[in-house]
Amino acid sequence: MTTMILGGAQMGPIQQADSRAAVVARMVDLLRAAHAKGVTMLVYPELALTTFFPRWYAEDRAEMDHWFETEMPNGATAPLFDLARDLGVAITFGYAELTPEGRHFNTSILTNRQGEIVGKYRKVHLPGHVELDPDRTHQHLEKRYFEPGDLGFNVWRNGGVVMGMAICNDRRWPETYRELGLQGVELVTIGYNTPSVNSQLGDEGLAQRLFHSDLVMQAGAYQNATFVAGIAKAGLEDGHHLMGGSIIVDPNGMVIARADTEDDELIVADCDFALCAFGKATVFDFARHRRIEHYTRTGTQTAAIVPR
Amino acid sequence: MTTMILGGAQMGPIQQADSRAAVVARMVDLLRAAHAKGVTMLVYPELALTTFFPRWYAEDRAEMDHWFETEMPNGATAPLFDLARDLGVAITFGYAELTPEGRHFNTSILTNRQGEIVGKYRKVHLPGHVELDPDRTHQHLEKRYFEPGDLGFNVWRNGGVVMGMAICNDRRWPETYRELGLQGVELVTIGYNTPSVNSQLGDEGLAQRLFHSDLVMQAGAYQNATFVAGIAKAGLEDGHHLMGGSIIVDPNGMVIARADTEDDELIVADCDFALCAFGKATVFDFARHRRIEHYTRTGTQTAAIVPR
Repeated sequence: MTTMILGGAQMGPIQQADSRAAVVARMVDLLRAAHAKGVTMLVYPELALTTFFPRWYAEDRAEMDHWFETEMPNGATAPLFDLARDLGVAITFGYAELTPEGRHFNTSILTNRQGEIVGKYRKVHLPGHVELDPDRTHQHLEKRYFEPGDLGFNVWRNGGVVMGMAICNDRRWPETYRELGLQGVELVTIGYNTPSVNSQLGDEGLAQRLFHSDLVMQAGAYQNATFVAGIAKAGLEDGHHLMGGSIIVDPNGMVIARADTEDDELIVADCDFALCAFGKATVFDFARHRRIEHYTRTGTQTAAIVPR
Repeated sequence: MTTMILGGAQMGPIQQADSRAAVVARMVDLLRAAHAKGVTMLVYPELALTTFFPRWYAEDRAEMDHWFETEMPNGATAPLFDLARDLGVAITFGYAELTPEGRHFNTSILTNRQGEIVGKYRKVHLPGHVELDPDRTHQHLEKRYFEPGDLGFNVWRNGGVVMGMAICNDRRWPETYRELGLQGVELVTIGYNTPSVNSQLGDEGLAQRLFHSDLVMQAGAYQNATFVAGIAKAGLEDGHHLMGGSIIVDPNGMVIARADTEDDELIVADCDFALCAFGKATVFDFARHRRIEHYTRTGTQTAAIVPR
């Protein structure tokens, strides 16, 4: 069975003024530190190359295009890809993607240990809103600047492990994990940028927001007998606070590594993927236990329909 | 907005030798205690009238029919229905149902405060196995003695609250809560009989099994912005130990009441169902955020299909 030393490269804040080169240099430092600990698969956050720009409103959306990457790898990220290949570390990270056709996605990619991109994911569950919302304490305009992902939830065999990706708000949706679980996923990597304050419920509090983040990833891991790595970009970014709380969860739903800081910080867990087999063969043996004849609403109904 | 004092009537063990009348007398005592605390909706466990008989193998399944109820209410349960009506307490409890057509289900019913049955649910996710399995430390033959439920997941407006039911192993499946959430559920009632020992993994341990039980109900509550009441039959039943851990969870996924014992025990929570509205209107506003075009596997694929 496959074992792997898995790393999570939590990142501290990235300010508007920080160049891509400066950010990639931090990612390279984290990669070196991870390799020194034996890591062969390293997970970076969502939008790892830039500040979380959807907090700002631009009437002309094109004003935000400078936060997007038009190709990957590109000049700025080449040092990261090169070092990952040289060290033999597979990586995944998120970035804003602008396609040749002019489409915008919140994207993550996955490489193998040879530094080749083997998988791409585009965020399906975009949170927030499209238009300026003066009732919020801060804006969260992901629905303005990105299209919902068009690739669905896929898995790739990478280093002997069945891997799938999700991004940030996807982690709150059990469908995310289930779509991957139905493809035998053994590791779900999730980068996130999550404001420490709920823009519509100021008194919710950081503790409850961290609890929710843990809860959904632990449940997703247990209910699909998979490892989950949820890795944050954290700290005070351009005056807006993002929560930390990066964790690695095992297939029993237990947190086996957790970040302590809100800065660049490496977390590491030695993962035995044989642990996925028990749940997949017993309580979550889908072949024996799922009853799709009763999942019609889940699969086909978007909005709640409440009886009178 | 609707508030309600919700009660959970955890029950201690029911031995093989205990009569239905003796069990109903205990349920009546719990009902009186609940009413004295202002409870207007009381949740009892799965298979509340009998021992958890699927732990025993009978080559001739008909030998188990004496554990089943052929009508509800019936002579044995009439005192419970009568008192619930007289006190104005809505109740839900589970029992083994044998239909006039000879079909067997693991069933629960829901009454209104007038003592009328307003809803019925038949357990969809039957755990365990069909044939005697000598590799297990104990048997769990629900798939032998019951058919999977044929009614799906439904909700009913009861006392101003949108209520749905699930039973035991259903609580581990996110589809359970989502099917109900897509009907605007505000309270999911779940009775259970869960062995304290995993028959296929003896060293799993009670603490982890209680953790899993909490985890799935807390996640289901949060992800659908609903209250969840998970109520156990607990303790040493005919030499086999069932775990307790009955809880009431709020729409934030927080445990707001928890049983301390493994015996007959009432837990109570004052529930403000207005709390469901925030999650349903924001992060879990399904109309804005669900992406059913990417849920096809979840809705239509039973078994995992793992890429080579």
